[in-house]
Amino acid sequence: MTEYKIALVGFGGVNRALAQLIAERNARWQQELGFSLKIVGVTDLFLGSVIDRNGLDAASLAALPAVKGAFAQLPEGTAEAFNESVIKHSGADIIAEATFTNPKDGEPAATFCRWALETGKHVVTTNKGPIALHGEELKRLTKANGVSFEYEGSVMSGTPVLRLARQTLAGSGVQGFEGILNGTSNYVLTRMEEGLGFAEAVAKAQQLGYAEADPTADVEGHDVRLKVVVLANELLGAHLQVNDVACSGISGITSNDIAQARDSGARWKLIGSARRDADGSVNASVEARLLPSSHPLVGISGATNAVAFDTELLGAVTVSGPGAGRIETAFALLSDIVALHTSGRQA
Amino acid sequence: MTEYKIALVGFGGVNRALAQLIAERNARWQQELGFSLKIVGVTDLFLGSVIDRNGLDAASLAALPAVKGAFAQLPEGTAEAFNESVIKHSGADIIAEATFTNPKDGEPAATFCRWALETGKHVVTTNKGPIALHGEELKRLTKANGVSFEYEGSVMSGTPVLRLARQTLAGSGVQGFEGILNGTSNYVLTRMEEGLGFAEAVAKAQQLGYAEADPTADVEGHDVRLKVVVLANELLGAHLQVNDVACSGISGITSNDIAQARDSGARWKLIGSARRDADGSVNASVEARLLPSSHPLVGISGATNAVAFDTELLGAVTVSGPGAGRIETAFALLSDIVALHTSGRQA
Repeated sequence: MTEYKIALVGFGGVNRALAQLIAERNARWQQELGFSLKIVGVTDLFLGSVIDRNGLDAASLAALPAVKGAFAQLPEGTAEAFNESVIKHSGADIIAEATFTNPKDGEPAATFCRWALETGKHVVTTNKGPIALHGEELKRLTKANGVSFEYEGSVMSGTPVLRLARQTLAGSGVQGFEGILNGTSNYVLTRMEEGLGFAEAVAKAQQLGYAEADPTADVEGHDVRLKVVVLANELLGAHLQVNDVACSGISGITSNDIAQARDSGARWKLIGSARRDADGSVNASVEARLLPSSHPLVGISGATNAVAFDTELLGAVTVSGPGAGRIETAFALLSDIVALHTSGRQA
Repeated sequence: MTEYKIALVGFGGVNRALAQLIAERNARWQQELGFSLKIVGVTDLFLGSVIDRNGLDAASLAALPAVKGAFAQLPEGTAEAFNESVIKHSGADIIAEATFTNPKDGEPAATFCRWALETGKHVVTTNKGPIALHGEELKRLTKANGVSFEYEGSVMSGTPVLRLARQTLAGSGVQGFEGILNGTSNYVLTRMEEGLGFAEAVAKAQQLGYAEADPTADVEGHDVRLKVVVLANELLGAHLQVNDVACSGISGITSNDIAQARDSGARWKLIGSARRDADGSVNASVEARLLPSSHPLVGISGATNAVAFDTELLGAVTVSGPGAGRIETAFALLSDIVALHTSGRQA
C-alpha cells in the first residue's frame, strides 16, 4: 500500500476541496486506487502556512475559516506563507499547485513548480499559467529530475482531455481539435439564445459566480487562448507561444446574430481550435464561430465544456463535461496522482 | 523496438482494415507507439487460412479478393480454415479476434479466445459476444496465463469508452451510465425527426448499409443489451447476465410521438443504461426514452454513438464518436495493443 505525502500550494477552493476529499475518501482510495494521501504541508499567500511531517488532519484543514493568517490558529502554523519551505522542506513526495493563474508570466506558480521539480518532487497542478507559458522548461526539469509533472486540470477542470487524447486515442492520428473551453462565455451565449442581451447575460453569469467582476478574460477569449496553447503543444507537438494564437471573443455577437443563427438551426460558439497542416505547422485560433446543426459541439449548452478531436482513423471524437468547480477541479489533481501512481514512477 | 507477431482470426472488414493499416503505418507506429506488428497467420471460415512465421505481406492480404477459399491463392495458404492451428501454432504473441457476434452463446469466438489465452497469447477483440457471455471465465483464463485480454471495440468501435472510464475517470466514482449504443436505431430516429415513417427510415438505413436485412437486433435493442452488459460488468462491478437486462426497442415509436417531442424540445432516443443503487446492486435496461433538451445525449444525431457517465465528483462526463466502421473498429484493435504494450506485459 502506497501513501503519498502531499503539500498543498494555494489553499483556495480547489486545494481545500482536495483536503475535503482526502478527509472523506482516503480509505476508499486505498482500496480502489492503491494509494492514500497524507497532507504534510499547506501554504497560501493569504492564509499563511503549516508543516507537519507526521500528517495534518485533512478535515480540520478543510474546515479552517478563510480569514487572513488563519493557519496561525493551528499548532504548527504561521500567518506568513513560507512557500519555499513548504515546497522544499515539508517532506512531500507530491506538490499540488493550485494558486491563481497569472496570464502574463505564470508567476509565482511557475517558480513554485520549479522549486518542486528541482528538489525531486512530483508536481500536479490545475494552473494553466506554468504549462502554457513555461511548458518546455518545466518538462526539461521534470525529465532531468526523474519525476512526474501532470496538469490535466489546466484545460477542462476534472473532465479528462489531455490523457484522454494521449492514452485512449494514441495511434488514431489526432490532427486538430475544436473546443468550447470557457464555461462563462458559453453560458452567456446560451442565455442570449433565450432572449437576454449580451450585457444582461454577463450580469447573470456574474450573479451566479461564473464570471469575474471583470469578465474580459472570459468573454474576449484570453482564458481560452491559454488552453489552446496547452492543447496544441501537448497533442499536436506544436511549439506555440500565447501570441501565436489569433484571439477574438464574443462581445461583438449581437442578439440579432443569435436570432438569425437559430433560424437556420445553427449556433454561435466561442471556439478555441488548432490544426496541423500538411507541412507540419500548427495553426491555432480563438474566435466566435457559427456552428451548423450537424457540428459535434453544437449541442454543448450552458457552462459545460467540450473538445472535439479530429482524428485520421475515427473522424470526430468528442468529450464533454464540467469545465470548472471546486470538487471537479480537485478531482483533476487526484487524476494526476492516479496517473503518476500508475506510471510506476512513485517516489 | 518491439515487434509483436499477430494472428488475425476472422478476415472480414475489420481485420482486413487492420492489415491495411499495418501496411500503411507500421513504420509510423514504431516511432509513435514504440512497436510494430507482423502478421504471422490469418484464418477465416469463408476464405481459408495461411501461416507464415516469417511474416505475411500486409498489403497483399488487404488486397486479397473476398471469394471463397481465397487464401489458397497464397503460397502457404489453404482454402480450409485451420482456426486452431493459426491461433495456437502460428507463433503469434497476439490474437486479433474479429469474427461475427453470436448473441446466443458467443461461439465460436469464445472458443477462439479460450484457445489463445490457454496457450499464453494476448487477445484483442472487437466482438461483444465472448465478453458479454463468457466474461468472467475469460478473465480468469487471462489472469491464470499472465496475458492481456482487451476488448475496447466491443462497445463503441474505436471510440474509447472502457479505458476512458477505467483510466481517465478512475476515482471519480462512476455510479452509472446512459448510452446511445446503436448507430442504426439512432439513425432511424433522426430520419423520423426529418419526417420519415419508421419503415421508411429503416429502409433508408438498409440502403446505406447501416441496418441488416433483418433489422431486429438493432431496432429492438438486442445489440444494445449486450453492450450494456459489458459496460455494467466492467465499470460498475456488476455480474449481469443478458437476461438480467430488461429490453425494449424503438419499433413502437410513432411519427406522432416524434413530433410531439419536438414541440417541447425533447427527443426520443434508444438508451442503454445501468446504475448502481445505494445497496450496491446494479439495475440495467434498454428502452426508448424521451430526453429533455438539457440532457447530455440529446444532441447525438445520426449514426453517432455516445455514453454519458454519471460520476460522483464530476457529474456527467460524455464521450461521443463513431460506433461502427471498418477502419474505426480496426483502430479499436490497435488501441488494445497500445494498452497491452503500455501495461508492460509484452510477450
